[in-house]
Amino acid sequence: MVGSELQWREAAPGVWSVRIGNPSQLSAMSVMGKQPEIEAMESLEQAEFPFAPAAIRIATAARRTVITLPLRREEAVYGMGLQLMKLNQRGRTRYLRVNSDPKQDTGETHAPVPFYVSSLGYGVMVDTSRIVTAYCGSAVRMDSGLEGDAKDRNADAGWKATPVADTVELVVPEGGADLYVFGGPTPLDAVRRYNLFHGGGTLPPRWGLGFWHRVPKSYSADQVVEEALAFRERRFPCDVIGLEPGWHSKSYPVTYEWNRELFPEPEAFLRRMEEEGFKVNLWEHPYASPDAPIYEPLKPLSGSHTVWHGLVPDYTLPQARDIYIKQHADEHVDIGVSGYKLDECDGSELTRNSWIFPAHAEFPSGADGEQMRQLYGLLLQKMTDDLYRSRNRRTYGLVRASSAGASTLPYVLYSDLYDHRQFVRAMCSASFSGLLWTPEVRKAASAEDWVRRMQVVCFSPLAMVNAWADGTKPWSFPEVETIVKKYITLRMRLLPYLYSAFAKYRLEGIPPIRAMQLESGAAASNSAGREHELDSAEFAYGGVSDAEMDDQFMFGDALLVAPLFAGETQRNVYLPPGIWYEFETGERRTGGQTIQVRPGLERIPVFVKDGAIVPMMPELDHAPKAGESVELELHHYGTAPGRFELFDDDGESFAYEQGEYRWRKLEVQPAADGKLTGTVSSADAGWQSAYSGFVWKIHHGAGD
Amino acid sequence: MVGSELQWREAAPGVWSVRIGNPSQLSAMSVMGKQPEIEAMESLEQAEFPFAPAAIRIATAARRTVITLPLRREEAVYGMGLQLMKLNQRGRTRYLRVNSDPKQDTGETHAPVPFYVSSLGYGVMVDTSRIVTAYCGSAVRMDSGLEGDAKDRNADAGWKATPVADTVELVVPEGGADLYVFGGPTPLDAVRRYNLFHGGGTLPPRWGLGFWHRVPKSYSADQVVEEALAFRERRFPCDVIGLEPGWHSKSYPVTYEWNRELFPEPEAFLRRMEEEGFKVNLWEHPYASPDAPIYEPLKPLSGSHTVWHGLVPDYTLPQARDIYIKQHADEHVDIGVSGYKLDECDGSELTRNSWIFPAHAEFPSGADGEQMRQLYGLLLQKMTDDLYRSRNRRTYGLVRASSAGASTLPYVLYSDLYDHRQFVRAMCSASFSGLLWTPEVRKAASAEDWVRRMQVVCFSPLAMVNAWADGTKPWSFPEVETIVKKYITLRMRLLPYLYSAFAKYRLEGIPPIRAMQLESGAAASNSAGREHELDSAEFAYGGVSDAEMDDQFMFGDALLVAPLFAGETQRNVYLPPGIWYEFETGERRTGGQTIQVRPGLERIPVFVKDGAIVPMMPELDHAPKAGESVELELHHYGTAPGRFELFDDDGESFAYEQGEYRWRKLEVQPAADGKLTGTVSSADAGWQSAYSGFVWKIHHGAGD
Repeated sequence: MVGSELQWREAAPGVWSVRIGNPSQLSAMSVMGKQPEIEAMESLEQAEFPFAPAAIRIATAARRTVITLPLRREEAVYGMGLQLMKLNQRGRTRYLRVNSDPKQDTGETHAPVPFYVSSLGYGVMVDTSRIVTAYCGSAVRMDSGLEGDAKDRNADAGWKATPVADTVELVVPEGGADLYVFGGPTPLDAVRRYNLFHGGGTLPPRWGLGFWHRVPKSYSADQVVEEALAFRERRFPCDVIGLEPGWHSKSYPVTYEWNRELFPEPEAFLRRMEEEGFKVNLWEHPYASPDAPIYEPLKPLSGSHTVWHGLVPDYTLPQARDIYIKQHADEHVDIGVSGYKLDECDGSELTRNSWIFPAHAEFPSGADGEQMRQLYGLLLQKMTDDLYRSRNRRTYGLVRASSAGASTLPYVLYSDLYDHRQFVRAMCSASFSGLLWTPEVRKAASAEDWVRRMQVVCFSPLAMVNAWADGTKPWSFPEVETIVKKYITLRMRLLPYLYSAFAKYRLEGIPPIRAMQLESGAAASNSAGREHELDSAEFAYGGVSDAEMDDQFMFGDALLVAPLFAGETQRNVYLPPGIWYEFETGERRTGGQTIQVRPGLERIPVFVKDGAIVPMMPELDHAPKAGESVELELHHYGTAPGRFELFDDDGESFAYEQGEYRWRKLEVQPAADGKLTGTVSSADAGWQSAYSGFVWKIHHGAGD
Repeated sequence: MVGSELQWREAAPGVWSVRIGNPSQLSAMSVMGKQPEIEAMESLEQAEFPFAPAAIRIATAARRTVITLPLRREEAVYGMGLQLMKLNQRGRTRYLRVNSDPKQDTGETHAPVPFYVSSLGYGVMVDTSRIVTAYCGSAVRMDSGLEGDAKDRNADAGWKATPVADTVELVVPEGGADLYVFGGPTPLDAVRRYNLFHGGGTLPPRWGLGFWHRVPKSYSADQVVEEALAFRERRFPCDVIGLEPGWHSKSYPVTYEWNRELFPEPEAFLRRMEEEGFKVNLWEHPYASPDAPIYEPLKPLSGSHTVWHGLVPDYTLPQARDIYIKQHADEHVDIGVSGYKLDECDGSELTRNSWIFPAHAEFPSGADGEQMRQLYGLLLQKMTDDLYRSRNRRTYGLVRASSAGASTLPYVLYSDLYDHRQFVRAMCSASFSGLLWTPEVRKAASAEDWVRRMQVVCFSPLAMVNAWADGTKPWSFPEVETIVKKYITLRMRLLPYLYSAFAKYRLEGIPPIRAMQLESGAAASNSAGREHELDSAEFAYGGVSDAEMDDQFMFGDALLVAPLFAGETQRNVYLPPGIWYEFETGERRTGGQTIQVRPGLERIPVFVKDGAIVPMMPELDHAPKAGESVELELHHYGTAPGRFELFDDDGESFAYEQGEYRWRKLEVQPAADGKLTGTVSSADAGWQSAYSGFVWKIHHGAGD
């Protein structure tokens, strides 16, 4: 069937959808059950349907649904969920299966999302519970009329392993799917529409954006308290302590019950931590031990296969969720646990490490193992988020698997893989598909590696040392302790800035940390930014050139971060058009070009836009709690006028969803004397602000 | 449904089959269309059905068929086609897709075969055109009663990532499959039944077992002749010269037509090569160039997608095969080409190298891309073998993809991957599933690496240097040229021995080169052979221990080969029970144990069984042609009486299938004086023997 026969409907402003065939009822969107943020979407620039309808082709059979969409020669294809190897998926076949070991570039990943955003400014998503295979310009149809492109490999240097194709083909292995098209006009607009369509981005509690530390496995309550207090003694900010395997009475599979030898009085332990200003996060996985009290009640609600002899509960069933939620509420949430690290909901089939329920596992709801694996991470996130929502408390945690439609979920992805460049690339990649990623720090090959990793993680959605296996601490390399402390402290000082960026994610769909390909001006300059390294045919022969702008990213709207990796003393940075200032030195730089920097180990290159306002907090040891207020320094950079919207709410509850928040307008304008002067919009009378006062710091470029 | 409801039929002696549901008509066996070698199967020891029928469970739905078979705690699972990473697949989930980049141990490989042989002495196969996923004891069912095996990872050192399961689950992604069970009683018997059921093993032409050399790409006829003659000048035996990309008028995609600039007179070139005693083998792949004369006729008989803008012909269609065969007969086969190297029929989805028709491609026969990819290698092999059969000429060639039921096909697998240990392991692995593999030599990091690779390849099904990219020649490392020459010459001298082993493969199903796990005595000693390295729980926790007997193999019935790898000066060798002699030094060794050897670079450790007879040819520069005859030396080793069956036929045609062959019985017995004396059975009057005479060489152990 050709696309002109499809009955498209406008599902939300600038979002068109069509049901193809008869998809399973279970899907990412059915799990999430979110409503679009219509009002926010209406405020976006109007979008046109990006295709000639007849250029779309659909083939449906019981076995599979094939959606063929046009692709222009110059287009790049971003997204497809968390992708560690490459940003531009053009020329690649992506097998979008949830997998904990994405060591080869097949498209498999912790968080595959059948959504792509084109460099031409539109997006396409398939809503399904099945594993989508996406041929992103990697399959050339006979009827494409491209046979004239055939080349002789021996005689023609222009031959490529993957010829240029003129289509994306999305294959769903069942007889139907729901297809969504997101208008632009820019790639960022398409991503915003995607996020807003799924309910907007997540807004973490303020403490979630502080520093995190996970203690070694099998630590006792006393050891945890001792390690936490070391942060206070050394004046390293820290908001969250994570417990790793060992806190359960049994783990792998888990009981969800406290190990009473290590934690004789969980309530007292949690109270003590709260008094010291620490939230506690608990590691778990979804496989219930035969020793878990909830094992017997969950057994009839579980799948046909076990993992590590633990149950695989069917959390599409409300009865199964109720059992999990009641136990978690009683034993953790209602006595003070702040959230979870949801591990091992992804699965692996590799040698020496084959563990996951099989794709043919049967679940009481009628779902099979393929569907459950694709959606398990989503189900766990949704269930725990709902639990906290029911207590009017925001949570923030970690998860090893996610899917489409996840932007509202207060969870950050992580991985056992540990290549630092991949970790930075993943942060860029996540931003295309409504995902968050932390390049968590575990260990380092050297003090230099430690510094480079710590610098990056402090500019990520979740700044954390994960010491579960290695026992590292931020001060583990004494020779660089002061550098590390500087960045953890800077993370804390930037909290109002980052929190406001997340509020924009929540309400306007703008990823707080994002790939350069989503910046206006930068997207088109993807190759120009690396002119000496790039194959000029990158877009024409997707997949051929290794070079792309995947090692620098935006942190909020004003800051551009360009990490160095161990072994490097210099790097190139592409600055989008405009004037920029080196954040720490104030050095003025002209954008629209690639510059070279040699920052030394003590510095990660960060650039701030001319006219930007960056609100900063005092160097607190943990984030302000609801009801507390702090004085902010408001830093203005450069010579241009500027403005910033500062998000102001209680920082912990969902009151903001009932309108209990304010955008405080920060503005810098030339005053009568020509000098730049800052103003802050006042909140209405009686508004309990999180900010007790403002002090302007007007910089004027270099050296100020 | 439980297995006791299945309507098993005995498809051949010791082979039971059942049709489950409604499988596609297209399958590996439907492509091959071979008949079982019933008579040979009847001569095997009688076998019992290896399962309690009720212990088998079947679940069929339109989406998938799941076959659950029992697995005992001590069982090892071998086979699943060519597997480069591991022999014992227990504890692994095998995704049996054809794939040219099996760089992770997922089960994907050039030649996946949904057939396994148990260490307990039986085999199981699924005949299908679909990608089978095999859970080889990697999935534990809830109803297994194994929940008591649950362990605490933190507290119990016995915890494993993959717990012991009690089933193999074979999953076919459609509503049916044909299931076959092969009786033993030994693993070798099960493998023999598998091979004989598919028509027996392949018998190459005699010249195919000589030495092969592939010249660099884009060589001209003159360059090829010059390179070939260098073998004669240097007195390096060589039977086959292979042409690589460049001989076609266009390649990638290919035209199948001669490049008339490089080969102005193909017939004269082939005649010249034949006169010098060389066969010529042509590289090709299955994708037809728009410039190929057969492009237009094949176009309506091809798939919906191209590869490199070339057609993907539907060779399940007789009309498509006819077009290919006529062109190949006229342009190659009937003017003297001896065979093909069938490249790139496997496919890849990796970065920078995504090329293959997609799984959803549609073919005129109704097959889809998944089926075509799984069977493409088989289709190409069968089609070309049939072409040569129709000329009563045997061929022998190379292929990059294969499938189930391939044992009759005169093709040897190879790969671009180049890890030497994997290459040796693959030779062992191939022997479980009716496949042949060559650890072809391309280049080496050092003279030592070169020697070690050349030593191994001379004990493989196809001894070859492949210089297409690197321009290497056997004498490329002058400092080791004499060692290399010694082994290529030994290969030639062993030709009657190896050819007879292949005749046993053809007529009795015994793999000529095979894994130790198929040797009686050795299978049970798999761990004992490496007692200091092995996790004793290897079988109980398949996939946990890395150590298994995967680096030594049998070469025929009498010789055991234990390669060294670059960087090694010594190694352990497990010798099965009995007395053995070091092949070159004659040193006596007692088997049933692991010994250590330090052979020096000039020697690959080879051991010969006490009593073995090894027939050897003169040091010819190429194999004897049909009608020629040679005098053999018959070497007897040790002190035990011995016998050997020497295959005697024309070496080139299929006359042997009409009974035109003889087994010459070589026997060594104590004579009246107590001394060992050899006898050779005479052939019947008028028999044109390939052997003009026999000279006995009776060794008596060390130093003789």
